[in-house]
Amino acid sequence: MSEIRQDITTNEWVIIATDRAKRPHDFVKPAKPLPPEFDPKCPFCPGNESQTPPEVLGYRQGGPANSPGWWIRVIPNRFAALSPREASATPKREVENGLFRKMDGIGKHEVLIETPKHNLYFPNFMDKQAEEVVIALRERYLALRTESNIKVVIIFKNHGDQAGTSLLHPHSQIVATPIVPQSLRRRLATATRYFDDNGGCLYCDLIQAEFKAARRMVEDGPKFFVMHPFASRSPFETWILPKQHSACFGHLDIDSTKELGRVLKRVLGKIFKLLGNPDYNIVIHTAPVNEEEEDYFHWYLRIIPRLSMMAGFEIGSGIFINTGLPEETAEALRAVKLQ
Amino acid sequence: MSEIRQDITTNEWVIIATDRAKRPHDFVKPAKPLPPEFDPKCPFCPGNESQTPPEVLGYRQGGPANSPGWWIRVIPNRFAALSPREASATPKREVENGLFRKMDGIGKHEVLIETPKHNLYFPNFMDKQAEEVVIALRERYLALRTESNIKVVIIFKNHGDQAGTSLLHPHSQIVATPIVPQSLRRRLATATRYFDDNGGCLYCDLIQAEFKAARRMVEDGPKFFVMHPFASRSPFETWILPKQHSACFGHLDIDSTKELGRVLKRVLGKIFKLLGNPDYNIVIHTAPVNEEEEDYFHWYLRIIPRLSMMAGFEIGSGIFINTGLPEETAEALRAVKLQ
Repeated sequence: MSEIRQDITTNEWVIIATDRAKRPHDFVKPAKPLPPEFDPKCPFCPGNESQTPPEVLGYRQGGPANSPGWWIRVIPNRFAALSPREASATPKREVENGLFRKMDGIGKHEVLIETPKHNLYFPNFMDKQAEEVVIALRERYLALRTESNIKVVIIFKNHGDQAGTSLLHPHSQIVATPIVPQSLRRRLATATRYFDDNGGCLYCDLIQAEFKAARRMVEDGPKFFVMHPFASRSPFETWILPKQHSACFGHLDIDSTKELGRVLKRVLGKIFKLLGNPDYNIVIHTAPVNEEEEDYFHWYLRIIPRLSMMAGFEIGSGIFINTGLPEETAEALRAVKLQ
Repeated sequence: MSEIRQDITTNEWVIIATDRAKRPHDFVKPAKPLPPEFDPKCPFCPGNESQTPPEVLGYRQGGPANSPGWWIRVIPNRFAALSPREASATPKREVENGLFRKMDGIGKHEVLIETPKHNLYFPNFMDKQAEEVVIALRERYLALRTESNIKVVIIFKNHGDQAGTSLLHPHSQIVATPIVPQSLRRRLATATRYFDDNGGCLYCDLIQAEFKAARRMVEDGPKFFVMHPFASRSPFETWILPKQHSACFGHLDIDSTKELGRVLKRVLGKIFKLLGNPDYNIVIHTAPVNEEEEDYFHWYLRIIPRLSMMAGFEIGSGIFINTGLPEETAEALRAVKLQ
């Protein structure tokens, strides 16, 4: 008999296939060949800076912008999902027939190149590199949140084919949108109702409860709590939550930002050591820019290894079937030793 | 500049990447080798009936149940996401700490084997076979809706790796759940609000508007309207809607059921002729079993070719980026001639 579990942060249901669950090591992926350290055709490799739009941020040892010498580089996405409006133009909104609503795709879409090395993955970064990737993400968050028309800044990462990336070179992405996504509205509404009913933050309470239960905890550090959620939608889904309440990723202090980089490196390192080099996504859920100070939301980072396919049942119902038990996958990850 | 469009049936936003949109023929998939007509290792092939749980329905020329001679066969899924409760047992529900809600995974999960031939895909069925697949789906819908604890019956199909299937042999699936999925609740709520505001069915109005606009229409038959939705989440997403208002797929009369089979065959045939043999999902959105008579919901069938990956942005925001323009893909599909 499987279990139907509810994600308290979204009210979404998940089917945990307890009786046909796979063991953690069943999710191990065959090793993929490592690409070369430098690919002359890669627009993100050093020396190819002219193949990208001019950088908006470069952490560099020297040299002018858009030349080699950087260790982290942020550029506008050449294939941007959203683009800046011309200063003079008013963004268009239209409703046709009361049924067809659309607006101009105004916003920003940036790419953060995480390392000059084409084949160096996050778990293999030096600590300092991992720290500075997160510092740079925070810096771009803080810059983009102030742009006109921007309601939310969404940070994410795609690693590998199954995670939807087309470029191997390690990078993250930042999209600033003029709308608040419905899924974020629902997270906010759920957390607000919890706050109104209980007088406290849902996520702070969740961290406390998961710490006590211990079974789904991956690690409990000084500033971050890492766990596999109770109603995990896919095997090895991992949440990293700040222990100090805050609705906004961009409000992290510098020490905590650096620690997040190290925690992320360590957790990804454990996932890689256990599972091979799985394709994965990272997303940061953070409050809309006008609600960054709220008591009732709590930002967090999700790692989603792409170990299962979204099929018709998930598309049709929104209910995910998870063949990994979060209690077992968390235990397996806790047991991984990185030297 | 891309367009941000809103799906009026869910209020979800979609980014239509108008300026980097692909042309319809850019989505053509390389041909895949056709498997053999019979695979001795396939549990769905004739002669291997003993490898599946005993059938719950068989359309057959003769022979006893669970032997060859069938042309359509429905069996319980051996790897069921949900399973029937024992007659004596009360389904368990638990809430731990106010945060962790779970219940027994009670329900039914069936597989409908659409043809005895291992390699015969829906677009290549004889008309009668296509009609009877839909008749059988309807028959199982009507049977499962009456079971105790069942709130919703979800019908879907996975075709191909990227659509999450592990078995090539053509089949559909039916899952009867003891809960109403949140995503269906939201569709119901959106349509109810529209009904309250406008005094009519959202989907009926949508069909009328799309018929008048004509640009996203694929075909307008006597009983079904076929279109690419305005805020399509992925390229070539196709909706088949009954023109006569009904909230419930199971309430189709027999003539309309047969026509749905032929329409589905024709539309999939056009998609296959244009795109090769793309992986795809089908889902039917229908009302919960206690709301089948409602004026404010309207069942429909969605075909989702899996031509793009769900990446971090989609996971993080719920906003899909679609590189196909529904106006162009509908036009391309209208132009396909099946002899």
